[in-house]
Amino acid sequence: MQITPARMLYTVDLAGTLLFGIEGASAAITGRLDLLGLMVLAFATALGGGIIRDVLLGATPPSALRDWRYPAIAFAGAAIVFFFHHFVQEIPAQFIMVLDAAGLALFAVSGTEKALLREMSPLVAVLLGGITGVGGGTIRDVLLAKVPNVLHADVYATAALAGSAAMILCRRLGMTDTQSAFVGGVVCFALRVVSVWRHWNLPIAA
Amino acid sequence: MQITPARMLYTVDLAGTLLFGIEGASAAITGRLDLLGLMVLAFATALGGGIIRDVLLGATPPSALRDWRYPAIAFAGAAIVFFFHHFVQEIPAQFIMVLDAAGLALFAVSGTEKALLREMSPLVAVLLGGITGVGGGTIRDVLLAKVPNVLHADVYATAALAGSAAMILCRRLGMTDTQSAFVGGVVCFALRVVSVWRHWNLPIAA
Amino acid sequence: MQITPARMLYTVDLAGTLLFGIEGASAAITGRLDLLGLMVLAFATALGGGIIRDVLLGATPPSALRDWRYPAIAFAGAAIVFFFHHFVQEIPAQFIMVLDAAGLALFAVSGTEKALLREMSPLVAVLLGGITGVGGGTIRDVLLAKVPNVLHADVYATAALAGSAAMILCRRLGMTDTQSAFVGGVVCFALRVVSVWRHWNLPIAA
Repeated sequence: MQITPARMLYTVDLAGTLLFGIEGASAAITGRLDLLGLMVLAFATALGGGIIRDVLLGATPPSALRDWRYPAIAFAGAAIVFFFHHFVQEIPAQFIMVLDAAGLALFAVSGTEKALLREMSPLVAVLLGGITGVGGGTIRDVLLAKVPNVLHADVYATAALAGSAAMILCRRLGMTDTQSAFVGGVVCFALRVVSVWRHWNLPIAA
Repeated sequence: MQITPARMLYTVDLAGTLLFGIEGASAAITGRLDLLGLMVLAFATALGGGIIRDVLLGATPPSALRDWRYPAIAFAGAAIVFFFHHFVQEIPAQFIMVLDAAGLALFAVSGTEKALLREMSPLVAVLLGGITGVGGGTIRDVLLAKVPNVLHADVYATAALAGSAAMILCRRLGMTDTQSAFVGGVVCFALRVVSVWRHWNLPIAA
Repeated sequence: MQITPARMLYTVDLAGTLLFGIEGASAAITGRLDLLGLMVLAFATALGGGIIRDVLLGATPPSALRDWRYPAIAFAGAAIVFFFHHFVQEIPAQFIMVLDAAGLALFAVSGTEKALLREMSPLVAVLLGGITGVGGGTIRDVLLAKVPNVLHADVYATAALAGSAAMILCRRLGMTDTQSAFVGGVVCFALRVVSVWRHWNLPIAA
C-alpha cells in the first residue's frame, strides 16, 4: 500500500477524530453521564464542528455521516475512556494538550480548505475553519449546560482562526495549496501551544 | 375512506407528534415559561428530532415544515396543556410513559427508514433513528438550560438505538420492510417499558 | 448612486445586523466573556436567526455567509462594544429598545418574505419570520447557559409572529408585497414598543 498525501491526511484526520472523541468522553465522565451520554459527547466533540460546517455549506449529508468510519472511531474513543479511564486520566495533561493542538490545527485547516473549495469569501472561510476546530467542543459544553470554554478562556478558537487566516494569506502570496495548509496548521499549533505555555489569555473588556 | 398502511402510519405519526408536544409543553410549565415558551417547547420537543434528521440528510425543508399539520398538531398539544394542565397533570405517569415509549418507537423506526432510503450506512441509519427519537427532548432540555436527560438517566436513547438496529438486522435477514419496521418498533417499545419497570439504568464509569 | 427600494432594504438590513451585533456583544460583557466570546456572541445574535431560517429552507450557504459584509458588520458591532462599551452602556435603554424593535420588525418581515418565496405554507412562513427575529437571541442565551429570555418574559417573539401574520394577511387581502411587508413591520414594531411601555407579558399557566 502506497503512502499518498490524501491517504496520510485521511489517517491524520481519523487520529484527530479519535483524540477529540476521547476528550469528549472524558468530559462526560466529569459530568457523571452514563454510557450513552459518554458516546454522545464523544460523537459531538469529535464530529460536531465538521457537521456544522457541512450543514452551513450545504454539503449534506455531512462527511462525518457519509463515511461510517468517522462515527465508529469517535465511539472507539468513547469505549477507550469507558473501559480504561483510570489509565486515560493518568496521561500527562501537557501531552494531551499538544495532541489536542495538533487536532485543532488539522480541523481548522481542513475546514478552511473545504470552505474555499465551495468558493466562500476569505472571511467566511476563516470563520468556517474556526467553527470546524471548536464547534464540537462548543456543542459538548452546551450539552453539559456550561458556558462554552472557548468563549471565556484560553487562546483556542483564536489559534484556529489565526491558522486559517495564515493559510489563506499564503495562498494569496502564491504558495501551493499544500504549502499553505502546512503553514496554516503550524501557525495554529504553535500559537495554541505557546499560549498555554506562556499562560496567554485574550483581553476582557474592563 | 380506505385505511392504507401509509395513511395509518401518517395518523400514528401525528398522534406521536401530539403526545411529544404535550410532554414538551408540560416541561415548559415546570420551568415557569410563558405561553410563547410553552409553544416553542411543544414544537421543539415534538418536531426537533425529525428536523435535525432532515437537515443532516439534506432533506430540506424538513417534512415537519413542508406539512403544516405537524406544527399545527404540536401547537394543539401546547394549547391542551395551557388550558387543561391540571387535567393533564392527573394522567397517571405510567400511562404517559407507555404512550411515550410508543412515540419513541415510531420516531426511531421512521428516522431509520428515512436514513436507509437516503442510502446511509447501517451505523449512520441507527444513529439517525436515535436522533429522530431523542433529538426533540434534547433540544427541550438545552432550552431549559439543563443537561439533557437522555445523557445521564434511563434507558431511553438506548431503546431507540436498539430498535433501529433490530430493524436493520431484520432487513439483512431477508424480512420485508414492513416486518422489519414492526420488529424494530416492538424492540424499542419493549426495551423502554421493561427498563422503566425494572429500574434499569446504563452503567456509569466508576 | 440611485436609491432603489432594494438598496434601501439592504442598508436597513445591515443596520439591523450592526445593532443586534452590539446587543450580542453587550451580553458577552455582562457574562464576562473574552474578546473572542464577544465576537462569537455578536455574530450569533446578529446572524443566528437568519442562518437557522436558511438552513431550514435548504437555502445554503446562508445569505449571512454568502455576503462577507454581514459577518464583517456583526464584528464591527463587537469592536464598538469592546472599545467603547462605557459609552455604549450610557445609551438610554429605551433608545436601544426602540432600535431593537425596529431590527426585530425588519428581521421578522424579511424572514417571512423568504419563506413565502420558497413556497412555505402561511403557518410555516409565520414561524420562520419569528425564528429569523428571535433565533439569534436564543442562541446567544443558550451559549450563556441561560434559559432564553424569549421563552419566559416580554412580548418579543410574539410581536415578530404577529407582524409576520399581519403581513401574510395583508397579502391575502390583495395588498402589494411592499405594502404587506410595511404593515407587518409596523405591527411588529408597534406591538413590541407598546408592550414594553405598558409592561405587558404573556400569560403563564397558573
